[in-house]
Amino acid sequence: MALLYYSGTDKDGVFERRFRDALKTLSPSLDVRTWPDVGDAKEIRFAALWLPPEGLFDALPNLTHIFALSAGVDRLLKAADLPADVPIYRLEDGGMSTPMSEYVLMGVLHAHRQMHVLADAQAAKQWKRDAAEPAAADWHVGILGAGVLSSAAAERLVMNGYKVSTWSRTEKHLNGVKSYFGPDQLSTFCGTLNTLVCLLPLTPDTTGLLNAEFFNQLPEGTSLINAARGEHCVDDDVITALNDGRLSSAMLDVFHEEPLPPTHPFWTHPKVIITPHNAAPTAGNIAAQQVAKNVADALAGRELAGFVDRNKGY
Amino acid sequence: MALLYYSGTDKDGVFERRFRDALKTLSPSLDVRTWPDVGDAKEIRFAALWLPPEGLFDALPNLTHIFALSAGVDRLLKAADLPADVPIYRLEDGGMSTPMSEYVLMGVLHAHRQMHVLADAQAAKQWKRDAAEPAAADWHVGILGAGVLSSAAAERLVMNGYKVSTWSRTEKHLNGVKSYFGPDQLSTFCGTLNTLVCLLPLTPDTTGLLNAEFFNQLPEGTSLINAARGEHCVDDDVITALNDGRLSSAMLDVFHEEPLPPTHPFWTHPKVIITPHNAAPTAGNIAAQQVAKNVADALAGRELAGFVDRNKGY
Repeated sequence: MALLYYSGTDKDGVFERRFRDALKTLSPSLDVRTWPDVGDAKEIRFAALWLPPEGLFDALPNLTHIFALSAGVDRLLKAADLPADVPIYRLEDGGMSTPMSEYVLMGVLHAHRQMHVLADAQAAKQWKRDAAEPAAADWHVGILGAGVLSSAAAERLVMNGYKVSTWSRTEKHLNGVKSYFGPDQLSTFCGTLNTLVCLLPLTPDTTGLLNAEFFNQLPEGTSLINAARGEHCVDDDVITALNDGRLSSAMLDVFHEEPLPPTHPFWTHPKVIITPHNAAPTAGNIAAQQVAKNVADALAGRELAGFVDRNKGY
Repeated sequence: MALLYYSGTDKDGVFERRFRDALKTLSPSLDVRTWPDVGDAKEIRFAALWLPPEGLFDALPNLTHIFALSAGVDRLLKAADLPADVPIYRLEDGGMSTPMSEYVLMGVLHAHRQMHVLADAQAAKQWKRDAAEPAAADWHVGILGAGVLSSAAAERLVMNGYKVSTWSRTEKHLNGVKSYFGPDQLSTFCGTLNTLVCLLPLTPDTTGLLNAEFFNQLPEGTSLINAARGEHCVDDDVITALNDGRLSSAMLDVFHEEPLPPTHPFWTHPKVIITPHNAAPTAGNIAAQQVAKNVADALAGRELAGFVDRNKGY
């Protein structure tokens, strides 16, 4: 019995090494192979994948479980040869909660402390003492999403004194957070925000959600943080909203095309901070723990964690 | 009986309004006057001051208590007409702990998340995925100082998962923090830091402490945050250390001369972030609480908070 591993971005093999080391400790009997060295493909029952190449699934006739090495499965669900009848499990944390919380907190502090205004002032050699700085309790952060990563980010912001709301498709409630849900409450959720954070799964419903119509529901000067997927944003609308002041700044970790092409206007926009999809890297050892536990649960006939409803997209 | 108020930076009167409003509630019988409208100067027993002009003290023959509207009293102690026999009390918090903690946390997150490296990459339109990002627990922050503001910053950093040490002149211990003290332990304190934060009081001993010799005790690539006083830094040595890589970046809130003169090289240095001495603004209402309590304690013959030892300088 074997597990096939592949990551489309682990160029230096650091993730693979940590993943294999942890899996060796947790499931010593599991034979772990790395695409394209599948060996006898009939032996492969499990696949642990990030951005699998076309043809991978077609090469695995006896696959019983697909483990996404990510929280989002939007790209995986688009794989042309994805078998329709093999269940998919996504990472529920994968070590991403902590760095994601730090990333969001950093972006919120940056906006709350008016660092974009101060950066402009510095460029003009201006000593600008009048930038308004409300208390954290008066800085209202809205998080789109209420899953594991959103919960962690919300908890971190609450712990640091911020006023936090979340919006999710279906009803969910988090501690210390005002919860909104469903399309009807989206506008109310947006109405009083200082910072908007997108941590939604990418689905047909959420693709292009962050567009002009959406931004017009935000107060003038809201700051945007997108650490979900590039496809949540209509890029032209983000730029228009930044230029007309609807958005004060944008910290963007994800893009329609990654790496972000050199010709994209985000690179040089003075109000955009670009990070290279590193907000919340999956930790090899922690991902391995979830995969190893899922492998053990699969072999024992128990329920697995992180089951993906393909209709919902997460 | 009267209190004389003066602030050298409250141009718009916001602080004064909050201070007076709070004082009116807390000490309704206290007659509060604002320099230079002293009225009958003989009636003035208390003075609450930030950057008092020369001649103010000479005009007050019956002053019994001086309340600094700041945590640091370095500038006050240099006032030419400061009476030698009137006790001085400084703000122990004054509403500064929370914004100072946020400022330090923001600077630490910025350094920890390699935002300077990523800003350079963005300027070059480079998708730089290889910036190392250790866990917060492996990011070692050293705070120079262990007073009220340092304690608050240390607590905030520990709460957010960072490894924190403090150094102070005399022995002090904070929860969850490794404490170093005295000149002999300064080098050991410096030896393993990723970020150095200066929150020391400015005294003859600490003036110019952040110089080339000091920076050479830090690991290559340490980031610097100075939110204490500009005079802690030897500016030329900061720039040399940034240029030769000893310091990776510097977030500076305080300067030898404020506003920072347009000709100063900090303004345009690519590794320097300048904030206009706004890391921890004194909150008028909270400062008023401490002053009002001190006035009440003085009238009742009780001990006052924030007594300044002029020999120590804080």
